Amino acid sequence: MPDPDLERAERAALEAVNAAFYAAFEAGDLDAMRALWLDAPDTVCIHPGALPVRGAGAVHRSWALVMANTSYIQFFLTDVEVSLRADVATVTCTENVLTGDDRTSPDVFGGAMALATQVFVRTPGGWRLWVRHAAPVLSDVGGHDA
Amino acid sequence: MPDPDLERAERAALEAVNAAFYAAFEAGDLDAMRALWLDAPDTVCIHPGALPVRGAGAVHRSWALVMANTSYIQFFLTDVEVSLRADVATVTCTENVLTGDDRTSPDVFGGAMALATQVFVRTPGGWRLWVRHAAPVLSDVGGHDA
Repeated sequence: MPDPDLERAERAALEAVNAAFYAAFEAGDLDAMRALWLDAPDTVCIHPGALPVRGAGAVHRSWALVMANTSYIQFFLTDVEVSLRADVATVTCTENVLTGDDRTSPDVFGGAMALATQVFVRTPGGWRLWVRHAAPVLSDVGGHDA
Repeated sequence: MPDPDLERAERAALEAVNAAFYAAFEAGDLDAMRALWLDAPDTVCIHPGALPVRGAGAVHRSWALVMANTSYIQFFLTDVEVSLRADVATVTCTENVLTGDDRTSPDVFGGAMALATQVFVRTPGGWRLWVRHAAPVLSDVGGHDA
């Protein structure tokens, strides 16, 4: 059942900014990545399996490190769900990830599945990432749709 | 640096409702747990390592299942951080977990560390859980504070 307050244009804008996040990651475009995040001390990014990175400056530095250590990454998103309350929106999605590894041949890729919860805040310049929590899917126990 | 918009009373209320969530889980109190969640179709709970459970009804059922399968659980929360934007608040915290297991002696407990991102929405009845994403901490790589 869709959220009655969620207008089509807002949903499209949120899906676009969510997609822009993954495009920036895939491209290793640190400037584009930086522009997507809320410039605030309470911005939080939880990379998969890691402890929280707090504050926009630390989040930007963490992305520089992640991108420097990623030779190739490609996302296929599934189950993208957008929800909205006033000026805050959440997007949850399944990240089906392909990564390359310099240590193997260039046509060998690893696959993985992670879940991301991303919380966006409306700003005069558009939606910005306030909180991202990404974590690997370990099993499908306990997970089911309504 | 504290959020300048975050008043002391609101921070206290959010910490209290966050603590009530863990108290309900520890006590296996399904009624108390149910009362904490937003009654909405876009309520989401991501149990550690699992796929998202969407919708208040499915979330309640998932907690009945989790509680039925938990003989003993106790949380020590650390790094509880509350952030607020308008009528939505996020709480991130580290869950230091002690669990008992019926298959071992009653004085043997397992320990684990997980991270939780919880998004609360203000309602006339108080703050309610809209989104919970909990996931195990696998390492501290990439995690650091500003």
